[in-house]
Amino acid sequence: MENKVKRNLPDDLMKELDLKPFETSKAGNPTVQRVAPKVRVTEGQNKVVDSLDDVIKNNLKDGVTISFHHHFRNGDFAFNTVMKKIIDMGYKDLTLAPSSLTGVMNDTVIEAIKKGVITNITSSGMRGSLGEFVSKGGLKNPVIFRSHGNRARSIEDGEIKIDVAFLGVPNADPAGNANGQEGDAVFGSLGYALMDAAYADKVVLLTDNIVSYPNTPASIKQDQVDYVVKVDKIGDPDKIGSGATRFTKDPKELKIAQMVNQVIVNSPYYKDGFSFQTGSGGAALAVTRYLRQAMIDDGIKASFAVGGITKPMCDLLEEGLINKLMDVQDFDKGSAASMAKNKNQQEIDASWYADPHNKGAVVNNLDVSILSALQIDTDFNVNVMTGSDGVIRGAVGGHQDSAAGAKMTIITAPLVRGRNATVVPKVETVVTPGESIDVLVTERGIAINPKRQDLIDTLSKVPGLKIVDIKDLQAQAEKQVGVPKPLEYTDRTVALVEYRDGTIIDAIKQVKD
Amino acid sequence: MENKVKRNLPDDLMKELDLKPFETSKAGNPTVQRVAPKVRVTEGQNKVVDSLDDVIKNNLKDGVTISFHHHFRNGDFAFNTVMKKIIDMGYKDLTLAPSSLTGVMNDTVIEAIKKGVITNITSSGMRGSLGEFVSKGGLKNPVIFRSHGNRARSIEDGEIKIDVAFLGVPNADPAGNANGQEGDAVFGSLGYALMDAAYADKVVLLTDNIVSYPNTPASIKQDQVDYVVKVDKIGDPDKIGSGATRFTKDPKELKIAQMVNQVIVNSPYYKDGFSFQTGSGGAALAVTRYLRQAMIDDGIKASFAVGGITKPMCDLLEEGLINKLMDVQDFDKGSAASMAKNKNQQEIDASWYADPHNKGAVVNNLDVSILSALQIDTDFNVNVMTGSDGVIRGAVGGHQDSAAGAKMTIITAPLVRGRNATVVPKVETVVTPGESIDVLVTERGIAINPKRQDLIDTLSKVPGLKIVDIKDLQAQAEKQVGVPKPLEYTDRTVALVEYRDGTIIDAIKQVKD
Repeated sequence: MENKVKRNLPDDLMKELDLKPFETSKAGNPTVQRVAPKVRVTEGQNKVVDSLDDVIKNNLKDGVTISFHHHFRNGDFAFNTVMKKIIDMGYKDLTLAPSSLTGVMNDTVIEAIKKGVITNITSSGMRGSLGEFVSKGGLKNPVIFRSHGNRARSIEDGEIKIDVAFLGVPNADPAGNANGQEGDAVFGSLGYALMDAAYADKVVLLTDNIVSYPNTPASIKQDQVDYVVKVDKIGDPDKIGSGATRFTKDPKELKIAQMVNQVIVNSPYYKDGFSFQTGSGGAALAVTRYLRQAMIDDGIKASFAVGGITKPMCDLLEEGLINKLMDVQDFDKGSAASMAKNKNQQEIDASWYADPHNKGAVVNNLDVSILSALQIDTDFNVNVMTGSDGVIRGAVGGHQDSAAGAKMTIITAPLVRGRNATVVPKVETVVTPGESIDVLVTERGIAINPKRQDLIDTLSKVPGLKIVDIKDLQAQAEKQVGVPKPLEYTDRTVALVEYRDGTIIDAIKQVKD
Repeated sequence: MENKVKRNLPDDLMKELDLKPFETSKAGNPTVQRVAPKVRVTEGQNKVVDSLDDVIKNNLKDGVTISFHHHFRNGDFAFNTVMKKIIDMGYKDLTLAPSSLTGVMNDTVIEAIKKGVITNITSSGMRGSLGEFVSKGGLKNPVIFRSHGNRARSIEDGEIKIDVAFLGVPNADPAGNANGQEGDAVFGSLGYALMDAAYADKVVLLTDNIVSYPNTPASIKQDQVDYVVKVDKIGDPDKIGSGATRFTKDPKELKIAQMVNQVIVNSPYYKDGFSFQTGSGGAALAVTRYLRQAMIDDGIKASFAVGGITKPMCDLLEEGLINKLMDVQDFDKGSAASMAKNKNQQEIDASWYADPHNKGAVVNNLDVSILSALQIDTDFNVNVMTGSDGVIRGAVGGHQDSAAGAKMTIITAPLVRGRNATVVPKVETVVTPGESIDVLVTERGIAINPKRQDLIDTLSKVPGLKIVDIKDLQAQAEKQVGVPKPLEYTDRTVALVEYRDGTIIDAIKQVKD
């Protein structure tokens, strides 16, 4: 079958898994019956245990779903500590349902797959050796890629039923109260992990830092936690976030950032109380810097910024240029450290952040969202999942969520990357549908989605802004790098990309070796 | 049938309602399947509506369960605003499931009962005209009295299924983010209401103070809220809490408080890092004052205090004598105002506070709990629900919860009140079983539960502490006021008192006029 963004979906698999094709980015007003965990009652004053082996033995069995968070990013010691034990203990046929998978987990996941320990994965994304392994058909069943908001929705609705969540934290008291804000391995917001803590049947904390009771603020609460496992070291502080947030010197990125800033400040959304989300890349950080200057010059303040938070955004908060930071994760050391001292840096869970099936997520209140792309096609569909070689090397993240929620979604991308076009006739994988994308900013010009005639009218009048047809950008890119040979795939589906409402927006096929 | 505290329970009713008799204060380790709300999905940026009528019309039908919180206490305008409309609109057969009922609600509840609008009530308690009305058989079905922890449990387990929660708040943004800490009608912690916000199918906020988005800290979160109803005035600040926390001058109360302090400081629990809960009465406040001096003198600091929080406890927090306040509700203006400025005054919901069926509530970590009693019998069973005339005039509150959780539970009570004995052979209504009570302090001496031989041994050695048999205290009381004529009741059960695990600890009969 073909869905609304013209992607061919595997009929057999869709039927077998009872999946529906993507139709629309509008969530509508369905009524949803949520699910709830099974709770084993305990008095719970002291849940500290030394033996992770015992915890696993007493709570896992073949076929269950286990979860982790990725707030430690590449400084994560929790995942490998737990998974290696699970592999050694010979469990089979587990579903791995982390908030995302970072590079430091790759070797262990591949080993677990090869030994039949993991046969199903749902994640925001995967990169490097694991992406390659899965793209080449290494995993038994297709990966289900979900956005952060969709993971929250799926957990709430029971589509992801977590049996045991293993959550690394930089501190916990013996009863299980924990946050991400104090200790050696601080990462700030526990946003994604809060879903696991609230919905998993069993919640296992791992920490190297047992603090005295009661530990507050308690992002994870004692009444959610079954075990607190003491480990030697839970994470490598130097690898948790990029230590420095250097300002890019890449002239192309700087040019794009300046243009993005021009689009924002000349849009109808730029006024006192506006709101925005930026990512963590070089261009995004540069946008924050230009926007800061504009806001000072124009006497304009933002009501909030949301998302992965960076140090430059915390600086804007402290300067009073942003009123509140709605913080589901922190991208660098500065923003992680900032949460403990700024009461206006509000920790939010993934549902509050971006769930399409609740009573209103923060992303729905967004004016402007600035997002990246591996590829964008002439229908404005965006790929942030597969490279130009068809191999998985990305993550949905909050891309679909933020794009669907924001009044104006801006994609920033260079026209080409090396020998590959970024603006293409047809993206390898549709992750975010063109209907939620409003503006594409490249160093060669700005393309505006034809459905936003209002923005075309407004921005065309701005001196210096070069508004072009996206097809022209695609043609320019093609002229630079030529027409690539179509990629060759087998018939086998290695991954399904869900849209945030659980419908299927694309299928990823196995690449030919 | 008779339960473990020798109370006769109405067999027919127990069978009809599928209820079990009270057996033990030990929660054990059952596995409990929680329930979850039905959510109607909305984008949810602006939920502000003017017409409460429309909200009621579109969300209520005969027979549903509605809820309110009692954090405004006698300054509450939310309850009457909503209930009067519901009465006028002619709904029938509703179940009223507030966290508790305060005097200011009485007239409206009675009117609603008389008109058949309300036929079932579950509450922590009731007082004054409503207690009298119910005790005389005014309500169709028996009231179910539940402790704060039990209400949390019942909501989580689905025994209380709230269809629509009407929650008054001193502030909310248009999306529904709200807290109890800013505005004219500030009450501090939203602890009890957080259960309704998380578990009701529909959540309606009422406020006189719409603030700009995003409103943080968000105790109630936008993703939980369906409507924000703007009202002229949500509460009377002067009646929300006792404005002043005057130190009692009653010599009997002072004497009891001094003895309680002696019991605490001579107990094995009094050491650095100990924890305690006190109530709000004159004796409790005096205990806090004596304890403060002892802690200063002895160089001892408490890890936390929990419960209904008072200004004197906030003072101890600011002095550094208490590390953390675990705050489910605030009893006075001072403690309500303190939450916004003290990050160590942690708002906790009723489940975290006292739920017997989760993975560990704060009360389980308590060393010392100081509680009051209307009556206590020679088996140490405590009545905080009915007067010596058999009429309902109290509330379970956190009594059962704190008593079950604390390592040492102290009941403070004068031997007699007016012409009525407080220490009696048999309490009119058992609310908290004697097995969770350790010490009774009266102005005539201290009785220790025989099961606590360790405390008897320890405290008997303390000079000046008069340890007596509880039967002696009962005899003294009887000598003072005589043996009262047994109360006369009809056979009809007007209320059932649940123990915190949902078993029935006592039944309250209709009083004879």
